[in-house]
This record gives sequence, structure tokens and C-alpha cells, in this order.
Amino acid sequence: MKLTILGCYAATPRTFTNPTSQVLEVKNRIFLIDCGEGTQVALRKNKIKFSKIEHIFISHLHGDHLYGLVGLVSTFMLLGRVADLHIHGPRGIKEIILLQLRLSNSFTGYNLYFHENDNKESIVVYEDDKVIVSTIPLVHRIYTMGYLFQEKAGLKRLNPEGVEKYGIEKLYYRNIVLGKDITLDDGRTIPNEELTFEPDKPKSYAFCSDTVFTETIIPYIKEVDSLYHESTFLQSEAELAQKTMHSTAIQAATIAKEANVGQLILGHYSTRYDSITLFKEEAQTVFENVLLADDGLSFEW
Amino acid sequence: MKLTILGCYAATPRTFTNPTSQVLEVKNRIFLIDCGEGTQVALRKNKIKFSKIEHIFISHLHGDHLYGLVGLVSTFMLLGRVADLHIHGPRGIKEIILLQLRLSNSFTGYNLYFHENDNKESIVVYEDDKVIVSTIPLVHRIYTMGYLFQEKAGLKRLNPEGVEKYGIEKLYYRNIVLGKDITLDDGRTIPNEELTFEPDKPKSYAFCSDTVFTETIIPYIKEVDSLYHESTFLQSEAELAQKTMHSTAIQAATIAKEANVGQLILGHYSTRYDSITLFKEEAQTVFENVLLADDGLSFEW
Repeated sequence: MKLTILGCYAATPRTFTNPTSQVLEVKNRIFLIDCGEGTQVALRKNKIKFSKIEHIFISHLHGDHLYGLVGLVSTFMLLGRVADLHIHGPRGIKEIILLQLRLSNSFTGYNLYFHENDNKESIVVYEDDKVIVSTIPLVHRIYTMGYLFQEKAGLKRLNPEGVEKYGIEKLYYRNIVLGKDITLDDGRTIPNEELTFEPDKPKSYAFCSDTVFTETIIPYIKEVDSLYHESTFLQSEAELAQKTMHSTAIQAATIAKEANVGQLILGHYSTRYDSITLFKEEAQTVFENVLLADDGLSFEW
Repeated sequence: MKLTILGCYAATPRTFTNPTSQVLEVKNRIFLIDCGEGTQVALRKNKIKFSKIEHIFISHLHGDHLYGLVGLVSTFMLLGRVADLHIHGPRGIKEIILLQLRLSNSFTGYNLYFHENDNKESIVVYEDDKVIVSTIPLVHRIYTMGYLFQEKAGLKRLNPEGVEKYGIEKLYYRNIVLGKDITLDDGRTIPNEELTFEPDKPKSYAFCSDTVFTETIIPYIKEVDSLYHESTFLQSEAELAQKTMHSTAIQAATIAKEANVGQLILGHYSTRYDSITLFKEEAQTVFENVLLADDGLSFEW
């Protein structure tokens, strides 16, 4: 999985920082997560191919996660896009986009599908043969959901030495990686374990922004490889975090620790801070493996 | 008058160019004209004080003139603005902004006034003691209006030598600049012309974007000091200009010539061209005093 941060600052776009948007590449699919103002320009800067984006996942309808979406939909239109586009988001997102397209007398040359959600439970919003995406109920000032991206378990991998040792024909390889034992012409049965390696462990990513500190999300994000958890504030603004239903760096780290995740990526920093290094320092008092998101950075795992 | 171009390219925002937005400073007022995506960041880059913007004029509801507005309204909110904000634009603009604020459960701490227009004739949309703003009916794919900004004729200016010559007391200066003659204690009447200079010629600016070539706008923009007229295309794309209801550089220059304006500022260039210098060359075959708008440039007159 490769995560590219297009923007990871809270509230208002500024000269050198963008509001929330990120791109997740997994199994040759490109998912766009949130779409603050300026996302289309950030996509260009990060050389993400517009046409590869087929699914957009919006967490909630606050402007710093949304206001770049209508412009991106329009730009796809102007660029002559033909591929379907799916927009996943809270109920209301369809009206916001279609009202603006209608009043500008615009028509997309591509099919635009909205998948609106107001479910308080986690639901699967996307699934194909290799990837599954489900929602994570978050707790914020308005209806908000995070997203959990999971690879599906792949096939076993062929052990070349094993198949060579028994002189097994290519014809049988498909059955072998599907986990079957093989019976040779001489009647011997070769157990599958001698012919294969275990499949790669499926990778996972959880996006949790925006949310107040809440342990209710832990069952959904348990042991994910990478957790992006918002940390709008430092400890000195803990009260403000509670009041505005955001989290501190220490709270994000507490969630990471309790969910036993592989690594924690912090973001959604309030623009009040001159430097973001303190976010890492504070988080690491609770959980060691902390990374700081920043605009233009990529993370791979 | 001082005009600062925040963005002047058509269609889609790009890494180094912005869609339409500009700031006009006149008599210590700051007017924002159009508000494409990224305008709030361009305002920051150009060091325009957000709080000084009290009136925003939107020409039409195409995204490249509008999609930065809701973000700007939200940012004003987050920055704790208290001053009233007036948004002038086509009917529908109120619904677009309020729907998004409502669905994000946002409340402005300032009064937000919408002045919606669908009048096919020119109307006055703003007036105070020094400035008057009226609409210019344009012809585009959807309802579109340009804006004419005019200073009002000021008071006459006191001629210091004249008042000294006759020993006139300061007490009478106000009446003098209002144009009145003065009767001295000895009974002599001094004609106003001996005591004053004519006021400065009121300045004017016409913003005409987007529009197809149409001479119907000429009566509204006759002899303005500066005309911003869209020139989306070069002559080689004249047919496309007609089809999409935009103008070419030569057509913009033809309007400038027929309206006998002081200077023509070209903008709203299609992003298909690598360089904008040809716009000036083509326009100058018709009208000499041509300037090229570009993001970040300012013009004063």
C-alpha cells in the first residue's frame, strides 16, 4: 500500500498547506480519500493520474474535507473523462454536487454515481476481488465516518523447488496455489505444504478523521498496518479538542496503542502551530511507532 | 483604482495558474470580483486583508468563477469575522452557499447578505457616497453579468492662491468646494471658478467575463478607463469561441475600440496555450493599448 498525503491540515487552506485529502494506492487501484479545496491542484503536483481515480471516499461534509470535490468533478468533465466515477459520502453530498452542476448547466460525459451513507454501523462500501473498503463510525460534530481499506488474502505462492522435485506439470499449478494436494502418476499424494509458501499477509489501512477521542473505534481498526488518526491539537489544547470534538496527539497514540496497530500516522494539525514536531514527541510518550503526515509526503508498507 | 489579478485563466485550476478572481481597490474600498477555487489562498499570497472585503461580485455560476466562494465564506467564519459580508451574484448562489453551510452544521458569526440578480437589464447593485457599481448584461451559456465600477464625481478642489488672495476664512472652504460663490465683507462677490480647480475626473473599470463577442455591451462600457474583457481564444479558435460563447483577443480588442476605452486588459485565457503573448499581438492589430492580465499582476490607473 502507498499513501500520498495531498493535504493534512485542519480548517483553512493556506499558502503552503492544504486541507485534508489523500491518495491510497493498493493492488493497482487508486482511491481518493477526502477532497478539501485545492485537491485537484495537489493531485497535479503529486502527478496522480486523474483518470485512475474511480472511487472517492468522503468522511464528512465539513468544508476542509469536501470543498474541492465539485471542482474535481467539473475538471474531470472538462478533460473529457469517460470512465465511471463513484463518490462515497454522507447523505447530502449528492445534492451539494448536483445543485452546483445544475445551476452551471453542466453535464458530465461520464457516469457519476453517488453512494450516500447515514448508517451508524460499519458497512462495506466497496469490494472487488482484491480489496474491501468498509466504514468506521467516528464521533464528530456532524455525521462522520472513517474508512478501513483491506487487501483480501491472496493465493498461496508456488514453491519452485517443490514442484521441480516431484516433476509436476504447469497444468497443476493453479490447483496448487488454490491449496490442493497433488496425486502423482505413481499414486503418491504430495501435501500442498510441500509445494507452496503461505500467501503474503494482507495489508490494511485505517483513515480516522475527524473524530473526538473514542475507544469505540478500536474494534474496527484492531491491528491494522497503518492508522491515520487525526490529532488536531497538542496536549495544551486538550479541552479545546474535547469541545470541538477533535483529538490530541496523545489521544491518537492511545488509540494506536490500544488497537495494537503497526504504525500511527498523525495529521489534521490545527494551523495555530508553527511546527508539527511536538505532535510526534507527545504521541511517542504513549506509542513508539509514530509518523507525521505532511503535504506531499508518501508512506509505503 | 488598483486592480490585482488573483487568477485569470479559464476552466481548471492548475499548479501555477488560477481560475478567475480579482480584487479592485477604489477609494479605500476593496471589492472581490469572482471567486474561483483557490481564491482564498491567492488572497493570502497577494496580502489582501480578508477583513477589508465586504462586497463580493460573482459574474456567473460556472465553477471557475465560483467554486472558491463557499471556502472563503467558511474561512471568514473560522477567522472570527464580525463585519457584514455582501454577496452579489446570479439567482441560485444563495442556495449553493447555504446548502453547504447547512449540511456542515456551520453558522457564520457575521451577517451574510445575498443580493441575487436575474435582471436582463443593467441595474445598480452597490452605491455609496464615492462609488457606484452596476451590472453589464453579458451573453454566455448561462446567465452572466459583468460589473461596471465608477467613482462618483468628487468635490471641486480648493485653489489655495485664490482663497489667500481674497483673505477668505477657512469657515467658507466647505461651501467653496461645493461650488458656491463667496460674498466678501466689502460686498464683492468672488465667482467660484477663481477659488477652485475642477475635481479629478472620476475613474472607471468594467469587468466583462465571460461573454461571447457582442456589441450590445458597448453602451455600458463606453469610455471606461480600463476594460477587462475575456479573450479565451486566439483567432485560430474563432469558431470554438463562438460555439462555447467565449471571445477571441481580436474580438475583445474590437469591443475596446468601439467603446473607445482607455486601456484593454485581456484575460480568461484557455489553458491550451503555452504562452499568452500572442493574445496581445493579435489584439493590437485592432486596438493599441492592450495589457495582459496574469496571476499576481496589478494594474493602477
